[in-house]
Amino acid sequence: MHPRFLYELDDCAILGGIETVGETWALKILREAIYGLRRFDDFARALGCGRGVLSDRLKKLTAAGILARQAYAEPGQRARAEYHMTEMGWDVVPVLLALGQWRERWAPASGGAAIRVTEPRSGRAVQMLMTADPKATSLSMDEVRIALGPGARRIG
Amino acid sequence: MHPRFLYELDDCAILGGIETVGETWALKILREAIYGLRRFDDFARALGCGRGVLSDRLKKLTAAGILARQAYAEPGQRARAEYHMTEMGWDVVPVLLALGQWRERWAPASGGAAIRVTEPRSGRAVQMLMTADPKATSLSMDEVRIALGPGARRIG
Repeated sequence: MHPRFLYELDDCAILGGIETVGETWALKILREAIYGLRRFDDFARALGCGRGVLSDRLKKLTAAGILARQAYAEPGQRARAEYHMTEMGWDVVPVLLALGQWRERWAPASGGAAIRVTEPRSGRAVQMLMTADPKATSLSMDEVRIALGPGARRIG
Repeated sequence: MHPRFLYELDDCAILGGIETVGETWALKILREAIYGLRRFDDFARALGCGRGVLSDRLKKLTAAGILARQAYAEPGQRARAEYHMTEMGWDVVPVLLALGQWRERWAPASGGAAIRVTEPRSGRAVQMLMTADPKATSLSMDEVRIALGPGARRIG
């Protein structure tokens, strides 16, 4: 028997993270939220997924506290729902950046990343890294700016 | 129309990363691979998923170059397959660490992370962080040690 089975490993932050956001449509929704999408119909159009799947994932992300549901109404129309990133939601962005960096390293997109993260003060690119330096501190999402990157191709 | 729709954003490293490993079972397989699992039956036992799902995800991870398939045979038995992490596969680990850190911050597991990543030279804990410091360099997976962490509970 592999020694792994001597341990109960279910009460684990990595597993909890996978179960909360480690799912294809959830991650794609968060990627679109970074671009500023908020409305159900916009998410549906951008993702091309079924409305049932989208509704289910938005509910789960809202229940987890990653998105917050807010009502809005266009003049003369009934109220609809928007989904805004919470602070907890913005804090998932580094996970997406780490995933993009990994992909860039091993199977670079010809056009590069569709988003570019910089520190406005210096204008420098932001990267995710692994460190054991106890003095090293991470930038917070308040300290970085997200803009469209070289992989974002203007249509027409 | 939301300005996001003025852009074609599909040729994007983050999206490519999501499509390669951003899926629940794929991420759970990689988590078990960190613990040292290699064999189909061990993955099936640890994950509790259907054999069809597991077979499909192992094939995809192998096709992507994240796992490498190797034959082995116990004495007197027919040859079977093991799935080993490649260098590209180990390089996904920081994504899982970032996900675990996020979860620890926002919904801490009572027992902490089931894995602990340290730098053997200093014995210090390794963390993922976001930086714009051009002189900052990341540890590589060769420079860190992964061991069971406080969230790993010995059975019995």
